[in-house]
Amino acid sequence: MIKDNQQPALVVDLGGTKIITAVVLPSGKVVSRNYCLTLAAKGPEAVTNRLLTAASKTVAQAKLETTELSGVGIAVAGVLDAKRGIITHSPNLPGWNNIPLRDILAEKFGIDTYIVNDASAAALGEHRFGAGKGVANLVYLTVSTGIGGGIIIDNKLYLGTDGCAGELGHMTIEAQGPQCSCGNLGCLESLASGTAVAREAVKCLGQGEASSIDGLVEGKLESVTADIVALAASQNDPLACNIVARAANYLGIGLANMVNIFNPELIVIGGGMSQMGDMLLEPARKVIKERAFRMPAQTVRVVRASLGSNSGIIGAATCVFEQ
Amino acid sequence: MIKDNQQPALVVDLGGTKIITAVVLPSGKVVSRNYCLTLAAKGPEAVTNRLLTAASKTVAQAKLETTELSGVGIAVAGVLDAKRGIITHSPNLPGWNNIPLRDILAEKFGIDTYIVNDASAAALGEHRFGAGKGVANLVYLTVSTGIGGGIIIDNKLYLGTDGCAGELGHMTIEAQGPQCSCGNLGCLESLASGTAVAREAVKCLGQGEASSIDGLVEGKLESVTADIVALAASQNDPLACNIVARAANYLGIGLANMVNIFNPELIVIGGGMSQMGDMLLEPARKVIKERAFRMPAQTVRVVRASLGSNSGIIGAATCVFEQ
Repeated sequence: MIKDNQQPALVVDLGGTKIITAVVLPSGKVVSRNYCLTLAAKGPEAVTNRLLTAASKTVAQAKLETTELSGVGIAVAGVLDAKRGIITHSPNLPGWNNIPLRDILAEKFGIDTYIVNDASAAALGEHRFGAGKGVANLVYLTVSTGIGGGIIIDNKLYLGTDGCAGELGHMTIEAQGPQCSCGNLGCLESLASGTAVAREAVKCLGQGEASSIDGLVEGKLESVTADIVALAASQNDPLACNIVARAANYLGIGLANMVNIFNPELIVIGGGMSQMGDMLLEPARKVIKERAFRMPAQTVRVVRASLGSNSGIIGAATCVFEQ
Repeated sequence: MIKDNQQPALVVDLGGTKIITAVVLPSGKVVSRNYCLTLAAKGPEAVTNRLLTAASKTVAQAKLETTELSGVGIAVAGVLDAKRGIITHSPNLPGWNNIPLRDILAEKFGIDTYIVNDASAAALGEHRFGAGKGVANLVYLTVSTGIGGGIIIDNKLYLGTDGCAGELGHMTIEAQGPQCSCGNLGCLESLASGTAVAREAVKCLGQGEASSIDGLVEGKLESVTADIVALAASQNDPLACNIVARAANYLGIGLANMVNIFNPELIVIGGGMSQMGDMLLEPARKVIKERAFRMPAQTVRVVRASLGSNSGIIGAATCVFEQ
């Protein structure tokens, strides 16, 4: 449990697009937050150097010495061997194979360091300080470029045997579906993520279907993103509405699976795509009612995350405070 | 925890085909076991009467008075509202909608009574006394007429908010797949259960495909069962081999999902179909390696249940002993 007199934690959220570094208080308050691009294509060494520089700057901005910190918490968009503190691989961080990031930071700062998958961290953050407060069993899903997950069972983060449980985005829901970034076919991620939405739009536009998306990207198909499709859908563009409805349907299938498996009280949805709100979530809730067993479908509430882009760093800090 | 000086438990395993009643000792030893057909088509009242008669007979055979029992444990092939002790519905027990079976038995025997889903009970039985002894996190799957599941997290049976978690057979793995007994499309159960294997064989034979299955059932398609298909496959009948391989592939997809979600140390497979052994399990293990993340796929072991048809009654007894 978090003790009142604990010192703040330094946290790093390493994603495929951006690195967030921050100092977090035991109350969950975020102070001295910095943000930089990951520039993942430059490889692990360059990214690690950028990360270490950003982390040091964040500690200095908070006017703290490292000895005044409880520890370092790292949230990473990758598959972890949590016991050994190693990132085994990551679809979004090219070249990050068996990188001992925990020990690199532990050596740099000389304090206790913990590493956790970013979606698991976000699940913990939302459970302790966000939309999941007071709920014993919940499932967290981040729907963004990819789809990640985190599982809270009996008020504890469930990490499994190696520390890599919760890969809910890599549940096959269409056995012969499109190839996913993980190599598998028909993962939830390959059908309902931001990447899937953008890919579907590009495919339809390439086939000559009419849509206001074309104007929004000035005919440049490579500029199509899920955000643009969402914008066009919010303006009632028929193609965009169909694409969002398709993703919402697949999201609902994935959520129905989680309802039948976990019988959770709550499912919390975070990530960029969750900003679509009920345009995405309302059809997904309907699919749960259609596909899952009646009792767990009636029980579960599906809500948006409430900590925004801070859920991961607050969760990583919680890992430090609760060790 | 089980105490050494505890009295035996009376247990009832109510399935769609058969009812098992038994007295079980705290050591897991089964004494005074009886077996009768459910005759589910006769409806809940008739089935309940048969069940009560069988249970009383079993207690008498053990030369016990009900006051000498720790309690009654009921394992049921249905979706439960565990808090209220009610079977909300069951694909295999027609008419069992909102039947308060726990209270019916509690009233009859006048002792503490507990009710649990049969696959969850089997998971607990295998964890305490069978193939899963000593493993903190495991997933149990019974592959039979239907497919049920049970989840052990941190050495405890995970039941979820209402007590109906673990419906692993009703995970959609083929979004537009065949209709399942639960009403959903493309559940694991609809593609890899005994029912699915028999249905596929009947379909192929009906389309005029040649197979030794035809001779084994003397041309009576209605007599085709998964056991018969397994027998033909073990004799290298090409159609039967294809049908078993197809079911094993879908089973593997379901298991790969569980590997990515739970990162379990062990998956235990029970139920009639598990008697096919490596003919079913070896291709499924291969699919896990192809589809799941590398680390959890390397970690997990997939083994057959070791308590046979006793896993459910031993698990139901464990529910009594550990209250």
